[in-house]
Amino acid sequence: MRIARFSIDGNVAFGAVEGEAAPGTADGLALNIIKGIPYGDFELSGTRVPLDKVRLLPPVLPNKVVAIGRNYAEHAAELGHEVPEVPVAFFKPTTSVVGSGDAIEYPSFSNELHHEAELAVVIGRMCREVPRERVQDVIFGYTCANDVTARDVQRRESQWARAKGFDTACPLGPWVETDFDPADAVVQCTVNGEQRQLGRTSDMVRSVADLVVHITEAMTLLPGDVILTGTPAGVGPLYPGDEVAVTIEGIGTLTNRVIKRG
Amino acid sequence: MRIARFSIDGNVAFGAVEGEAAPGTADGLALNIIKGIPYGDFELSGTRVPLDKVRLLPPVLPNKVVAIGRNYAEHAAELGHEVPEVPVAFFKPTTSVVGSGDAIEYPSFSNELHHEAELAVVIGRMCREVPRERVQDVIFGYTCANDVTARDVQRRESQWARAKGFDTACPLGPWVETDFDPADAVVQCTVNGEQRQLGRTSDMVRSVADLVVHITEAMTLLPGDVILTGTPAGVGPLYPGDEVAVTIEGIGTLTNRVIKRG
Repeated sequence: MRIARFSIDGNVAFGAVEGEAAPGTADGLALNIIKGIPYGDFELSGTRVPLDKVRLLPPVLPNKVVAIGRNYAEHAAELGHEVPEVPVAFFKPTTSVVGSGDAIEYPSFSNELHHEAELAVVIGRMCREVPRERVQDVIFGYTCANDVTARDVQRRESQWARAKGFDTACPLGPWVETDFDPADAVVQCTVNGEQRQLGRTSDMVRSVADLVVHITEAMTLLPGDVILTGTPAGVGPLYPGDEVAVTIEGIGTLTNRVIKRG
Repeated sequence: MRIARFSIDGNVAFGAVEGEAAPGTADGLALNIIKGIPYGDFELSGTRVPLDKVRLLPPVLPNKVVAIGRNYAEHAAELGHEVPEVPVAFFKPTTSVVGSGDAIEYPSFSNELHHEAELAVVIGRMCREVPRERVQDVIFGYTCANDVTARDVQRRESQWARAKGFDTACPLGPWVETDFDPADAVVQCTVNGEQRQLGRTSDMVRSVADLVVHITEAMTLLPGDVILTGTPAGVGPLYPGDEVAVTIEGIGTLTNRVIKRG
């Protein structure tokens, strides 16, 4: 099931996405409004609104976003790094989260903004020290993410809070797909329709299960928390005016326009 | 004014701390319960409870904690680092926040847990791109923090999400002091009553105002967000059974016992 969060006429709700869209459009998709919160048991109301009449919001309201660096060997190599012995884990703050259709604001303190298309894992249950065989139980679903990075700032600052944590640096969406197998899906990024990144989740150095075990060894994850699983090769610059789209096979497309911060 | 957050008989409230305590005790202190939330206008109810009858909670519920590394030259030197050209900024997750009196759980994946006594700034207003002359307007008050660090993990992992972000790694408290001048206060850490760290906020490489400008250049801060301002020299090991206390002149003492994670 695809579960979106959206606003219409000032009201915010979750909805199940129904129908099949023509490629590159939302035509034919509708939201079946969910009664309550989709973590746990919920009901579909049967009340439907066309997807192109709503504003999509980030599909989750995470308490935290834990991101993983250098999890595809080709991407580590393109930035001149080895694959690290231990996964590189860092946080993106909730103030950086935006949804599909929202703007990415080019920050004033960078001259080198990069896209990083990533598979995002959405946690469904409070958990810590999750054993490998229980990882499936704590995952609610998957969505697309763009780990937008001020590459010049990342080179200058040893910790990445500013380089990867500025406002709008974490687009998530368009919805959460609860029926998704992360073993081998295509992850793609286009800028203005031109392909920039193309990878497969099967090329991850550490699997989704590895990452959940590694992160929850240290910290509690809460329902709605998000794990970004690293980006494949092909990262590159974004400029004001660009439209950047992250597509993951079996999930959908997250689209954002880059604007100058006003 | 000193503003604490506490629970009594299962209810959670904010209270203004009144009275003067005998050193090392809470005797003589009472909480005048606050009507509503202390960000903005609020009233004191006049209903008082003795401080030693309540459980202190973290005095704020931050959306995010932004911490600064290597902001005292002597501490940078003791770990073999230079003072960085740009402040080192990283996040501690909200799941790491505990209050005074709560346990610090020694994590299973570390053999070298360190204390780091720090002055914490509590933000009072939503803000971004704060000009230097407006910094005072966005600060609600100050509290004590312990930036507890798994030093061995910090050496192994280039980003510090696990080393400084595990559950209980961010004690804050005992309360927020709204009348405090961060220019030159003594910051002290004791372990089992023995002094380990002693510094003055006047030795910070970057001032509180510098840090607010630097962080909000990139990201929005929300009411209750916290900035940790770095630790003075003298960091050292903690072991299960230790009692670690961070005292800041003019604020109070944050005390936590270290236990083995159960």
